[in-house]
Amino acid sequence: MSESKYAQRGVSAGKEDVHKAIKNLDKGLYPNAFCKILPDLAAGDANYVNIMHADTAGTKTSLAYLYWKETGDVSVWEGIVQDAMVMNLDDMACAGMTNDFILSSTIGRNKNLVDGSVVVALIGAQKKLADKMAEFGVNLHLAGGETADVGDIVRTADVGFTAFGRLPKADVIDINIKEGDVIVGLASYGQASYEDEYNSGIGSNGLTFARHEVLLKAYADKYPDSFDPNLNENVVYTGKSFLTDSFEDAPLNIGKMLLSPTRTFVPVLKAVIEKHRSQINGIIHNTGGGLAKVLHFAGDVSIQKNKPLPIPPVFRMIQQQTGAPWQEMFQVFNMGQRIEFYVPAEIADSIIEISKSFNIHAQVMGHVQKGPKEVVVRHGDLEYVYK
Amino acid sequence: MSESKYAQRGVSAGKEDVHKAIKNLDKGLYPNAFCKILPDLAAGDANYVNIMHADTAGTKTSLAYLYWKETGDVSVWEGIVQDAMVMNLDDMACAGMTNDFILSSTIGRNKNLVDGSVVVALIGAQKKLADKMAEFGVNLHLAGGETADVGDIVRTADVGFTAFGRLPKADVIDINIKEGDVIVGLASYGQASYEDEYNSGIGSNGLTFARHEVLLKAYADKYPDSFDPNLNENVVYTGKSFLTDSFEDAPLNIGKMLLSPTRTFVPVLKAVIEKHRSQINGIIHNTGGGLAKVLHFAGDVSIQKNKPLPIPPVFRMIQQQTGAPWQEMFQVFNMGQRIEFYVPAEIADSIIEISKSFNIHAQVMGHVQKGPKEVVVRHGDLEYVYK
Repeated sequence: MSESKYAQRGVSAGKEDVHKAIKNLDKGLYPNAFCKILPDLAAGDANYVNIMHADTAGTKTSLAYLYWKETGDVSVWEGIVQDAMVMNLDDMACAGMTNDFILSSTIGRNKNLVDGSVVVALIGAQKKLADKMAEFGVNLHLAGGETADVGDIVRTADVGFTAFGRLPKADVIDINIKEGDVIVGLASYGQASYEDEYNSGIGSNGLTFARHEVLLKAYADKYPDSFDPNLNENVVYTGKSFLTDSFEDAPLNIGKMLLSPTRTFVPVLKAVIEKHRSQINGIIHNTGGGLAKVLHFAGDVSIQKNKPLPIPPVFRMIQQQTGAPWQEMFQVFNMGQRIEFYVPAEIADSIIEISKSFNIHAQVMGHVQKGPKEVVVRHGDLEYVYK
Repeated sequence: MSESKYAQRGVSAGKEDVHKAIKNLDKGLYPNAFCKILPDLAAGDANYVNIMHADTAGTKTSLAYLYWKETGDVSVWEGIVQDAMVMNLDDMACAGMTNDFILSSTIGRNKNLVDGSVVVALIGAQKKLADKMAEFGVNLHLAGGETADVGDIVRTADVGFTAFGRLPKADVIDINIKEGDVIVGLASYGQASYEDEYNSGIGSNGLTFARHEVLLKAYADKYPDSFDPNLNENVVYTGKSFLTDSFEDAPLNIGKMLLSPTRTFVPVLKAVIEKHRSQINGIIHNTGGGLAKVLHFAGDVSIQKNKPLPIPPVFRMIQQQTGAPWQEMFQVFNMGQRIEFYVPAEIADSIIEISKSFNIHAQVMGHVQKGPKEVVVRHGDLEYVYK
């Protein structure tokens, strides 16, 4: 997709405006950690730190609205809550925080379009995820939140969470990716032992792209509230598919593949960190930026991703239907690997074994060598370079 | 305004859907405190508690958008940040928390309509308020937040904050309003010693009502992104005024009166609480519900507000232009008194003195007597009863 199409859709994966506005703000105690690390403002103990983190389900919510309206399946809203919660949890876990998350929601909705059944689903889903995680020793404390009826602000619904945590300073993972590290990638797809059904691996990034480029124009006329009416018509729902279409032998229809709730890796990350903390040089959560995300945290090293995990159906579907260049696909989506460990080779097998114990595929997907700073992704016979 | 007009605008001050969805959720350690009080999840000390609280500027953001587009005055966006921050701070202060707030923002914007200058204003304003509060010993710790470009979700911009705090259990104000209490009301209007200009007192509630009922239909055509296009035309901008019109001798134009940033009372509340904590039976922040808000926290007592504070121009303007019944006005807006102390008569003068030391008018505005449960507001020769 051309740069101008992103601009026309009002999307900026690079967030230039935001980075410009925050460039002079304090970066926290560990500027290279995956999240901003605050001193222990809560309790004032020099041996502890705090993390406060916010994220939303983004425009995936618009897709949930479409699917719910088309099929009546309110459960897709539960997935949206999981998306917004996990976007916080997994980021924080990459910084070393793996338990006792305190979470608060910020939900805005257009009451004229999104009824009380959705509110019930949005609130109930929080407890479902918390109950499931508690089985794995990961405590999510639900503090409540704000649910506002603001149809003059929100077209359909907006779902965000903010998470707070306190952890020993010694537990913080300060990213320091080294020459010689291997990269262990964890699959975003499949069915983890703590999931009730197949997960496509889509996560919560690239959904503006995927929704508009995959779905048929018919949705524009039928659901004018699902997109910005200021957009040029040629970037709105320009795809070939209905939500309920199937794709090859994928176990979910296209809508459900795109809506698959973002998997949390916290149970796995907790187990790996507890066993190997001192040897972990970095954990990267491939959100916006896809397989190039790590560039934000790398020094002058060349990161060779020459054995990426198999690409699951959802991303093959998106590429096939949109014709997006693969180089772009790997930079917008996680492409099947949402978590990457940067570690010495000797613990790779142990990480893979732990991951597999949760029924999550993992493999050594590359290594780190002498610079210049870059990420190189091998795809078949091709290589894509990101700097 | 009729009930059906609220419904048509998708507003529900009563939030029935939300209350239904959360009715079975845990109410916290002190179910009658002004905020949900959590155990000390952060540090596990039985003598401490946590509060996590979320709120947004609601549809006041839409008004800021209009004013900014009309006048080019980007400073109104700074006011929106203050609105969203203070809606958290002042609620938490009513529960006894008056220092070391940790705050994180959740900002969504339509990049096609709201440019980088606004993002700069939104982020810069946080520090301005924090710097000002620090002068009064009130520390606001800015943890960062999420700023997302989501034009398919947000029409113009949405600005929310989530705040976390930890405080000694002994500091929690567990509301217990008693017969014989007097009510000391603190003015929401005027110019506090820590404010740079006159504050209209509007706060952050009732803005959907005020915006649509005060402003002229011309804004509907010019700014279709400022409201839900699904609304019936007869509830959209049905008023008589331009944003820059003046009203009687009010020191601000109509737009600026409606956009006046929500005053924080935390410096005052901190001083009062430090001096009188053990004698305070309740502090109420009159947000949604106006002068009837206290009903959520009262037992079987009759709350007589027979000497309410003078009504400042912004509310007189709204009533005059909309013809809204006064009984409704007192239930939608704070009408000039945003904070109420419920205390024994002997400390009333001290509270008033402290408030005046910050250049904030305060007065005994009523008292509490034997039930039935009700709020009675005297207005001239009339009385309005809320149950």
